[in-house]
Amino acid sequence: MNAQPPTAQADGLQDVARALEAVRARGPLVQSITNYVSMDIAANAVLAVGASPAMVHDPSEAAEFAGIAAALSVNIGTPSPRWAEGMAMAADAAVAAGRPWVLDPVAVGATALRNELSADLLARRPSVIRANASEVLALAALAGAGARGGSGKGVDAGDAVEDAVEAARALAAQRGCVVACTGKVDVVTDGERMVRVEGGSPLLPRITAVGCSLTAVTAAFCAVEPDPLAAAVAACAVFAAAGTRAGREARGPGSMRVAFLDELSTLDAAGLADGASVHVLTGAAA
Amino acid sequence: MNAQPPTAQADGLQDVARALEAVRARGPLVQSITNYVSMDIAANAVLAVGASPAMVHDPSEAAEFAGIAAALSVNIGTPSPRWAEGMAMAADAAVAAGRPWVLDPVAVGATALRNELSADLLARRPSVIRANASEVLALAALAGAGARGGSGKGVDAGDAVEDAVEAARALAAQRGCVVACTGKVDVVTDGERMVRVEGGSPLLPRITAVGCSLTAVTAAFCAVEPDPLAAAVAACAVFAAAGTRAGREARGPGSMRVAFLDELSTLDAAGLADGASVHVLTGAAA
Amino acid sequence: MNAQPPTAQADGLQDVARALEAVRARGPLVQSITNYVSMDIAANAVLAVGASPAMVHDPSEAAEFAGIAAALSVNIGTPSPRWAEGMAMAADAAVAAGRPWVLDPVAVGATALRNELSADLLARRPSVIRANASEVLALAALAGAGARGGSGKGVDAGDAVEDAVEAARALAAQRGCVVACTGKVDVVTDGERMVRVEGGSPLLPRITAVGCSLTAVTAAFCAVEPDPLAAAVAACAVFAAAGTRAGREARGPGSMRVAFLDELSTLDAAGLADGASVHVLTGAAA
Repeated sequence: MNAQPPTAQADGLQDVARALEAVRARGPLVQSITNYVSMDIAANAVLAVGASPAMVHDPSEAAEFAGIAAALSVNIGTPSPRWAEGMAMAADAAVAAGRPWVLDPVAVGATALRNELSADLLARRPSVIRANASEVLALAALAGAGARGGSGKGVDAGDAVEDAVEAARALAAQRGCVVACTGKVDVVTDGERMVRVEGGSPLLPRITAVGCSLTAVTAAFCAVEPDPLAAAVAACAVFAAAGTRAGREARGPGSMRVAFLDELSTLDAAGLADGASVHVLTGAAA
Repeated sequence: MNAQPPTAQADGLQDVARALEAVRARGPLVQSITNYVSMDIAANAVLAVGASPAMVHDPSEAAEFAGIAAALSVNIGTPSPRWAEGMAMAADAAVAAGRPWVLDPVAVGATALRNELSADLLARRPSVIRANASEVLALAALAGAGARGGSGKGVDAGDAVEDAVEAARALAAQRGCVVACTGKVDVVTDGERMVRVEGGSPLLPRITAVGCSLTAVTAAFCAVEPDPLAAAVAACAVFAAAGTRAGREARGPGSMRVAFLDELSTLDAAGLADGASVHVLTGAAA
Repeated sequence: MNAQPPTAQADGLQDVARALEAVRARGPLVQSITNYVSMDIAANAVLAVGASPAMVHDPSEAAEFAGIAAALSVNIGTPSPRWAEGMAMAADAAVAAGRPWVLDPVAVGATALRNELSADLLARRPSVIRANASEVLALAALAGAGARGGSGKGVDAGDAVEDAVEAARALAAQRGCVVACTGKVDVVTDGERMVRVEGGSPLLPRITAVGCSLTAVTAAFCAVEPDPLAAAVAACAVFAAAGTRAGREARGPGSMRVAFLDELSTLDAAGLADGASVHVLTGAAA
């Protein structure tokens, strides 16, 4: 990070609006291997932003389908050995086909299975890692990227995003990928550039699997935006803006989910500016 | 199809209303083997129309349960070898017990697994096939029923229902079953008779797994209506009417889902007439 | 049961309010092995009452995770041999770690697999069994606790709670656990004490997997309340109160689900008194 005070970038939001238009215009097919809890909301979120979700996970077809899909999302939330095999095959097929893929290492650090699976998938070259602060800290520690382990025990973060920024940067630099560390604020980095996205609502994390849905939507943006950092920033900004706006009218997590999906599907440039801000902390040349 | 201009049939909607009353009065137990994405909404849709859903899939109990259930629904949306085994066993047990079953060949044509599984299940004599236009074209081509393959790549149709009508008719005639090809309009045929159902809303396909839910609800209607064509028409008309009415008040896919389930549970004859129309394109004696 | 007329106990609701505050203050990590249908709503219900849900089921990590979680919930709704193995391992690990666990024997009595699995899990010493009347009757019969089998065929009860009270009491006494038999009213017993909880709405059972969600939420209360009878009563009363209040404004099962989750997350002592009542039928010393 540098000494400049971060300032909101109107340019950043214009890029987000353009990326959102591209998702809606092209409707990319997004293969999503995700946990059972998130199947419904993740598919609905991908559909709401204008892409086409396809949940295809089994080793008997996961790699074949990755050759058809425009992007792949892999979330390890409810892992098992057979699903892990499908994840690895799909990731390899996506890379072989030159397609972007996004990794969500849910609750890495909590069990040996999650640590092994996350390390295995990390080695298969994801374009973007989308995770909460505790998961970023745990994954960076696993990868030897200089971080202490996180204090998360389950799917909810026990650490603040601010405390995982350096781990995110080191992990991204080491692996040559983008890390999107999300929470109250989101920080997206490729090891050199670093962008902060603000917005959202305290009600947003009261809906289960919103983070998993953001992972799948990040894959949708990667399908239309060649720069994975810009794609991840766009996905975070769209979620932040829809979250801010939905949070104003929701009375609890039930109505929040309804309003959030409605907002995702109707969001435009004015809505983005109303509900989110994008701050470039470190530019490409910094 | 014949030369008569299709006209809305008040009689058709009266039959639908009677079938809906029968579902509510008898509350049939509907076994549903469906994909992970649709588990929640399909069970809720079956419950909303007045039937009792039971998701029972594993080979260790799927056939046994098919002997208890009044009808069976099989959707291949997130297939794996073990689930495929359960599907085949349940279908055979339903046929052996004289119970109707409905097949939903999700994304057939997209992968070898889906083609093999769909062909295998098709040979087990479903009462009704519920599919989108691309899936009907792909399944008819697989079955040698004279169609080109469809242009769908995932779960969303790449073809219009109009382009799949002849494939639907040929497939139904060849297999002695009913094919319900659904989309902006729905066409239901048993190879001789052909009925078109109109209604719905552009917001309806913005909810994921609505088609899968229609498949499960079709099974519920098959449990109370001995003519599978009439059962499939009733299910399509109920979804069309609830969709039309929900679409008038919804602001996006989140509120659409809420309103749609509410409408499914409260729909009456007046609501059916308000939101759907049934057109007999070719009668039994045509 | 005794001869005293049951009367509503303000004390009972104060205990419920205190337990709800404890869940919100401590946010216990609740491991939930549940069926596919309920994954979304059960996780959201656990989150809405203030706990942290984690769906961890596979034998490769289920026992390890049970050592981290504050309580465990096991629901057999969509069973398979591999999941059954994970359930057994998690239950044993919870008991070994001195953590409470709650069993939901969905549709026990319907298939041989469910009978075997339920008997196996019952032997692993659950703290609480949460079930509908038909399931309580079937499980008590399996356990030789003197009941006839129930008349349920699927996931919906074919029997009234009143008809299962004695079976619940006998089962609880035989096994030294708490049985929460839920339906239009709920009866909770440890074999000696017996408490009835009233409230709810006819719309509540029109949402699929509400019972499964109550099971997971019961585990959340067990994590903060050492007396499993008090924990089960608290969970039932919270659901009853949220159900009563949500039912006043809902127009069908879609809006009911939204309002119910909102109510779960905002419920306070006044809301509890407004929507539920707790009746001690037999006290500890009776």
